[in-house]
Amino acid sequence: MKRNSKKLKIGYIGGGSRGWAHTFINDLAQCEDLSGEVFLYDIDYEAAKRNEKFGNWVQSLNEAVGSWEYRAVKERKKALDDADFVILSIQPGPIEHMAKDIDIPQKYGIYDTVCDTVGPGGTVRAMRTIPIYRDFARAIRKHCPDAWTINYTNPMTVCTRTLYEEFPRIKAFGCCHEVFGTQSFLASLVRKYWDVEEEPSRDEIDVNVKGINHFTWIDRAEWRGRDLFPLLDRHVTEEGVVREFETEEMKEESYFVDNFQVTYELYKRFGILPAAGDRHLVEFVPWFLEDVDDPESLHRWGIRLTPNEYRLERWREAPKKFHKQMEGEEEFEFIDSGEEGIDQMKALLGLGDMKTNVNLPNQGQMPEMPEGAVVETNAYFSQNQISPVTAGKLPRQVRNMILTHVYNQETLVEAGFKGDVDLAFQAFLNDPLVNLDTERARELFEEMVRETQDFLDDWNLKDSETLK
Amino acid sequence: MKRNSKKLKIGYIGGGSRGWAHTFINDLAQCEDLSGEVFLYDIDYEAAKRNEKFGNWVQSLNEAVGSWEYRAVKERKKALDDADFVILSIQPGPIEHMAKDIDIPQKYGIYDTVCDTVGPGGTVRAMRTIPIYRDFARAIRKHCPDAWTINYTNPMTVCTRTLYEEFPRIKAFGCCHEVFGTQSFLASLVRKYWDVEEEPSRDEIDVNVKGINHFTWIDRAEWRGRDLFPLLDRHVTEEGVVREFETEEMKEESYFVDNFQVTYELYKRFGILPAAGDRHLVEFVPWFLEDVDDPESLHRWGIRLTPNEYRLERWREAPKKFHKQMEGEEEFEFIDSGEEGIDQMKALLGLGDMKTNVNLPNQGQMPEMPEGAVVETNAYFSQNQISPVTAGKLPRQVRNMILTHVYNQETLVEAGFKGDVDLAFQAFLNDPLVNLDTERARELFEEMVRETQDFLDDWNLKDSETLK
Amino acid sequence: MKRNSKKLKIGYIGGGSRGWAHTFINDLAQCEDLSGEVFLYDIDYEAAKRNEKFGNWVQSLNEAVGSWEYRAVKERKKALDDADFVILSIQPGPIEHMAKDIDIPQKYGIYDTVCDTVGPGGTVRAMRTIPIYRDFARAIRKHCPDAWTINYTNPMTVCTRTLYEEFPRIKAFGCCHEVFGTQSFLASLVRKYWDVEEEPSRDEIDVNVKGINHFTWIDRAEWRGRDLFPLLDRHVTEEGVVREFETEEMKEESYFVDNFQVTYELYKRFGILPAAGDRHLVEFVPWFLEDVDDPESLHRWGIRLTPNEYRLERWREAPKKFHKQMEGEEEFEFIDSGEEGIDQMKALLGLGDMKTNVNLPNQGQMPEMPEGAVVETNAYFSQNQISPVTAGKLPRQVRNMILTHVYNQETLVEAGFKGDVDLAFQAFLNDPLVNLDTERARELFEEMVRETQDFLDDWNLKDSETLK
Amino acid sequence: MKRNSKKLKIGYIGGGSRGWAHTFINDLAQCEDLSGEVFLYDIDYEAAKRNEKFGNWVQSLNEAVGSWEYRAVKERKKALDDADFVILSIQPGPIEHMAKDIDIPQKYGIYDTVCDTVGPGGTVRAMRTIPIYRDFARAIRKHCPDAWTINYTNPMTVCTRTLYEEFPRIKAFGCCHEVFGTQSFLASLVRKYWDVEEEPSRDEIDVNVKGINHFTWIDRAEWRGRDLFPLLDRHVTEEGVVREFETEEMKEESYFVDNFQVTYELYKRFGILPAAGDRHLVEFVPWFLEDVDDPESLHRWGIRLTPNEYRLERWREAPKKFHKQMEGEEEFEFIDSGEEGIDQMKALLGLGDMKTNVNLPNQGQMPEMPEGAVVETNAYFSQNQISPVTAGKLPRQVRNMILTHVYNQETLVEAGFKGDVDLAFQAFLNDPLVNLDTERARELFEEMVRETQDFLDDWNLKDSETLK
Repeated sequence: MKRNSKKLKIGYIGGGSRGWAHTFINDLAQCEDLSGEVFLYDIDYEAAKRNEKFGNWVQSLNEAVGSWEYRAVKERKKALDDADFVILSIQPGPIEHMAKDIDIPQKYGIYDTVCDTVGPGGTVRAMRTIPIYRDFARAIRKHCPDAWTINYTNPMTVCTRTLYEEFPRIKAFGCCHEVFGTQSFLASLVRKYWDVEEEPSRDEIDVNVKGINHFTWIDRAEWRGRDLFPLLDRHVTEEGVVREFETEEMKEESYFVDNFQVTYELYKRFGILPAAGDRHLVEFVPWFLEDVDDPESLHRWGIRLTPNEYRLERWREAPKKFHKQMEGEEEFEFIDSGEEGIDQMKALLGLGDMKTNVNLPNQGQMPEMPEGAVVETNAYFSQNQISPVTAGKLPRQVRNMILTHVYNQETLVEAGFKGDVDLAFQAFLNDPLVNLDTERARELFEEMVRETQDFLDDWNLKDSETLK
Repeated sequence: MKRNSKKLKIGYIGGGSRGWAHTFINDLAQCEDLSGEVFLYDIDYEAAKRNEKFGNWVQSLNEAVGSWEYRAVKERKKALDDADFVILSIQPGPIEHMAKDIDIPQKYGIYDTVCDTVGPGGTVRAMRTIPIYRDFARAIRKHCPDAWTINYTNPMTVCTRTLYEEFPRIKAFGCCHEVFGTQSFLASLVRKYWDVEEEPSRDEIDVNVKGINHFTWIDRAEWRGRDLFPLLDRHVTEEGVVREFETEEMKEESYFVDNFQVTYELYKRFGILPAAGDRHLVEFVPWFLEDVDDPESLHRWGIRLTPNEYRLERWREAPKKFHKQMEGEEEFEFIDSGEEGIDQMKALLGLGDMKTNVNLPNQGQMPEMPEGAVVETNAYFSQNQISPVTAGKLPRQVRNMILTHVYNQETLVEAGFKGDVDLAFQAFLNDPLVNLDTERARELFEEMVRETQDFLDDWNLKDSETLK
Repeated sequence: MKRNSKKLKIGYIGGGSRGWAHTFINDLAQCEDLSGEVFLYDIDYEAAKRNEKFGNWVQSLNEAVGSWEYRAVKERKKALDDADFVILSIQPGPIEHMAKDIDIPQKYGIYDTVCDTVGPGGTVRAMRTIPIYRDFARAIRKHCPDAWTINYTNPMTVCTRTLYEEFPRIKAFGCCHEVFGTQSFLASLVRKYWDVEEEPSRDEIDVNVKGINHFTWIDRAEWRGRDLFPLLDRHVTEEGVVREFETEEMKEESYFVDNFQVTYELYKRFGILPAAGDRHLVEFVPWFLEDVDDPESLHRWGIRLTPNEYRLERWREAPKKFHKQMEGEEEFEFIDSGEEGIDQMKALLGLGDMKTNVNLPNQGQMPEMPEGAVVETNAYFSQNQISPVTAGKLPRQVRNMILTHVYNQETLVEAGFKGDVDLAFQAFLNDPLVNLDTERARELFEEMVRETQDFLDDWNLKDSETLK
Repeated sequence: MKRNSKKLKIGYIGGGSRGWAHTFINDLAQCEDLSGEVFLYDIDYEAAKRNEKFGNWVQSLNEAVGSWEYRAVKERKKALDDADFVILSIQPGPIEHMAKDIDIPQKYGIYDTVCDTVGPGGTVRAMRTIPIYRDFARAIRKHCPDAWTINYTNPMTVCTRTLYEEFPRIKAFGCCHEVFGTQSFLASLVRKYWDVEEEPSRDEIDVNVKGINHFTWIDRAEWRGRDLFPLLDRHVTEEGVVREFETEEMKEESYFVDNFQVTYELYKRFGILPAAGDRHLVEFVPWFLEDVDDPESLHRWGIRLTPNEYRLERWREAPKKFHKQMEGEEEFEFIDSGEEGIDQMKALLGLGDMKTNVNLPNQGQMPEMPEGAVVETNAYFSQNQISPVTAGKLPRQVRNMILTHVYNQETLVEAGFKGDVDLAFQAFLNDPLVNLDTERARELFEEMVRETQDFLDDWNLKDSETLK
């Protein structure tokens, strides 16, 4: 009788993905309980084809369990028809446009670190994404209205909100692993300060999550019933923990290094722990990316800007690795990805409840936020349902910081549905990183919009008073 | 490292209980994972002593697992000091006063069925209970502020609300098994209409619970991911399911029989399923207990009034049974009580998450209800925390019916803290069962209050304008 | 430049009215500042014609000032086209149907006093009215979207709410003089207990009004800055003020007599003064109309039921009086009607601000009530706008009583727009006067609906599960 | 019977004022309806004495009407005892400290224009003010709890909020004339674009005001029932209206010149008209004061920074003028001040209702703002009461900008009552003008606090983690 005896159909939109898809293939091949078909659809069919090949190759390995078949398809309809699950994981617009999202603001002294959530880059990226996601929602309504849809694309909040705005009955949720990093960090403190043999696994660290994606906060953290905040309070007073980094020592670091200095700073100021990487956190407030003359000032916080050349290179090189693995030129090893997508699917199929943080429209989990706005809190996954838990209130000033973005995001989605560029500019202006004279802000906005306008068909550029 | 390796201390207030305590002893003796001491405190020390004896006797049986010791104590302090769990399960005031709660309104044509929640009897019972529960909250704050407190006493909502009003940081929750009956009923439908070999166990029936204790509602019910509402819709159209009962056929029935006719009626009218026994439901609306000339009209709904003699007799006889069992005159058998208290304790100790319905102050789980009012919804129990899930909205008219009682209960608690009898009378008047001329209502109220005034010390009866 | 130099056009829907129209004609003829045309439209053209004749006759009298012409029209369009003001004052359905609204519930032991607001009769009347008012709103949107619309029809709340639901930008408000009676009563207390030469005029009594039409409350009352509540508190303790009336002494009284006993009773119980006539108040709570065996029990409160024969007779006779006046058989005298309609129009035209109580969708004036629900509070009228003032909160239990009706009314309007009879029945059941077994309630509802079904075209009677 | 026949007592705190007091003296001397005594209290007794002399001299002039006596007192108690009205109009801390509020941030590149509301200077000023206003509230509660208190001191919102937080039953309101400027501007448009002989007086321009002090907005503006927004829309497209100013042309301008360029800019961006001077508006958003290298960039918006020397000089010179007038060296002429204080007092005494914008705790007038936060909307003044009108909603992004400050202000008041410097720093950090690295922000904050610490006795500086 169990749902899992049935062969599942998964429709993967963005199935040519160079990152997520491979993690997914890795994870699926290690899951004993599920089997079925994964339909890979991508506007770059060749990329989907590559993943089809890689996926089936992985399944052919001895260590692979379960029984999965990957199929690249040319029509999206084929991926969605009667799907049990839909995965959305796309690059909204060409990678080169993301590079522009980063480059152009730098000319105006605004240095985004990640550039896919908020800030000038995140805002323009949202503008590109909303029409795409409206289209996704319409397609899901038509082809598989009862499917569970998992979104991995950023800007997470805007994507998830758009799906619900277009198709309110959609069973969609947004997943992000940023909070995991904070859990791992807390686990390391347990190992460091308490007399335990082994570092707890990160999912043993029980945290109460609240906020919006990439700007989530934790006001309760326990391991086996023991409060971890006293541990944290001790940690931040340890010699050398809270410190300034020098440009010199940052030079050799990975572009993605996280030294928690922004986390410590916000924790000290607001008394509640931010739960996302520092590279994300700095984009939500104007206090870290501001020194216009010296982008290296960011190093002081132990983080780096990621050069676009590096991003592009990395993007281009990604497929080669998998090619080499299939050719035996490089070794392939199953990894424990730490991602929860498969576990979530299993829980929704009735194979065991699980709790994790997830992005969903607010229906009471954050009573101080507007109803319907997408927030990130813990939720329990069980058969055929996701139940957000009530996350409670926030300190007033943290609420203040979050609400600014919630209103901006709500405004962007409204603007996207109306095609109203001037309304989108209101959100752009109110982004805390946009500390420009309004005319300079307008110029920046116009330059960014013009650069990506081929992907803004649903927006009424023509009648905008913001674009001259 | 696990909490459960520690010997637990449970403080049981009302430890002379004739019902709950025995179920608890039964359940605890079958739980392998826990061990410790149960301190039984009761204002009737002899009753506690009886339960101590019975509890230890049960533990001495071969089939008993775990290691538990029962100890009756004469001072409440001893039961509470450093307790890990506190159980509150009392009779608020002498059983004879409950009889009066039932008898007096009947003279005014108001026939309460259970009389421990709302209605004239529930209201006066609440008045007796609030001072007692304030005192409990103060004692817990003093002796074991970090203990988990489980309340089983009715009126559930008012008791739980009082605990939080007096000691906002208390870790208390209220438990009630009424929803289980609805789950069992739905399980029986699965067996009846679907081709399954065995009736599912009631906890396999996944329901979304919302409302207030004894007036909870379900708007989602699934078994293994399959929607049960179509089943219900079919059921209520089956020949003979919805029908009127005759007084004749009710005569031989148990006083506690439930034929679901009130449930069906409310479901048909409001499109959402009430999830409490019919005997409880009828007390919340004025449509079932109204025919003043003929209390037997209640039979038409397949329920009966419980005579006070029967209640008193049952109460008096209860201890004898256990005495006989200990003496070997009657066989003792462990039963599967179906209660969840032990499982909840285990979950809170970190021995596995569980989901169930529970009474807690509203912090978003029911966004349409006032913040802080005690509501009943699902919650997940995990190590050291209870996370209510967001239960969503109610149809407007169900919200309307519930809100009437929420406001009455909030008013009663406020009145109790102020000792303001006139304010309590406002709640009394607005109870849907009080369809009396205001002067008659006042007379009824006064008669009831006078009868139980020895237990209303904290109330300012002297200055009341309602009492003449 | 002033708007008033322009000739106004007033479109009067229900222009054959036997009551309001004559007051209006009287008032208009005494207003120096305005002039123009009044277009009288009525489904009973002859009635409109009678009022045209009467209106022009009044204008021809020497004492008449201003310059007004009355014109009965056969097409509603003609009355509305480019009107500056629209007056809505109709009898929703034939007077005989209102008689049925009263008669049928009496068979079930429910004795409505006025029967045009809530209760079984008010509910069925609302069902007849909603389709008519939707149609009015559509016509106003088409013919005079910028006109100010004044509603006098009951049920006031439902009528006003329907106008806004159909045409959200409408400039409509609902007027009722019930609060004036309470002001006059308070004025009489000033005269009685304070050393003043003359009773203040009722509009000198400053009151803070809040609630819903016919169930409004006052928590502040001043005359020339002096608090009147101490006066009221003194009054209710005076010998003979609060007392029971005998059937004998009520016999000779007018059917409309108001002895304030219900007002006193509610004031004593809830500590805030109800501000509508007792005949209205008793319909909102179940405490006065309940003694099913003896409708005369109402006399105890100093009010009477109005026999239908009397109502019908009065309705039939009304035109004759005016006929006699025009024929010189009876004297005509201008009266000070005490109505405010003309003053409100003048204020909206810029001829002086005024404050009064008015029915409008809630936009903050009652922060505890749902947004958009029609509430009655004070508002200031000034040129081209009505500004409701914030009326503040209510004691919890008064809020409780009002909210029950607010939700019922919201439900009725929603039901009316959907044509959903079963949803309307939910509101019917939850009316506090319906203390019947649900099946008896259903029978009553069905009987009432069937009786008036010719006027329920927009309702889907066919598919209702409530109607068998 | 009228209140006005009574001799009034006005207690003026800050009675040595160099600005407001003189306007007040001027206005009072021209008011026929009122008479009484004005008690001037100031921590600088000599200043109060000067005003006493000046006030009585003005009253001695032939043109002075009414009968008023001015009395400087050395004890505050004497000014307050049984006062009918209390006026609060102080300089919170020495003028030199205000100069510091302006100077220090400039070292960090933050150029405040007015520096008494928000921004770094406004925040620190608030910190100085809260303890003073708590003390005022306590004194009023003690000496004249029924008096009407009018506040003129900035930061207006924080002052008014503090009064209510300390003494919730206080009858206080905050007055500010900034909106008058916007009305005058709109009046000038009427004259310019419509064929009217004379410019309407500013109070004929009917506007719907909403927001917080100095950051108020208008979404409705009419003159004699005619909508002024089309006029505004025309105006901003006229040649030369919206333009950039050059430093050269600004040099000769008054330091207080307002060219409406910021107003136009915000209106264009957000579609709703800001209603405060540009010098105030620029302090609420980060778009105008940002160019750290060039404070003159402000000139582009047609506004200037006010040098501290000028402020100090002006402050020092003010008394001399009045001295000269009394000596006959300079002519004294009554002016029409345009202030409304006297009219408000008259309305509260029952001498005619009036509508104006006023600062009061939110009780529904702005349904989207937190209850109790001080907001600025229209209200009607009538005998013994002020009734805020419901101002309706704001466009989401304007709400967003305002809420940021509302939360900051609520946080500041909470911090002030707790003496919690670290909490105050949270508000400081979240001020939109503080676009500094958190450490730089901390340094700025510390420097400012240290400089004014003699006036921060009620704050716990010692235990602050923000101050090192």
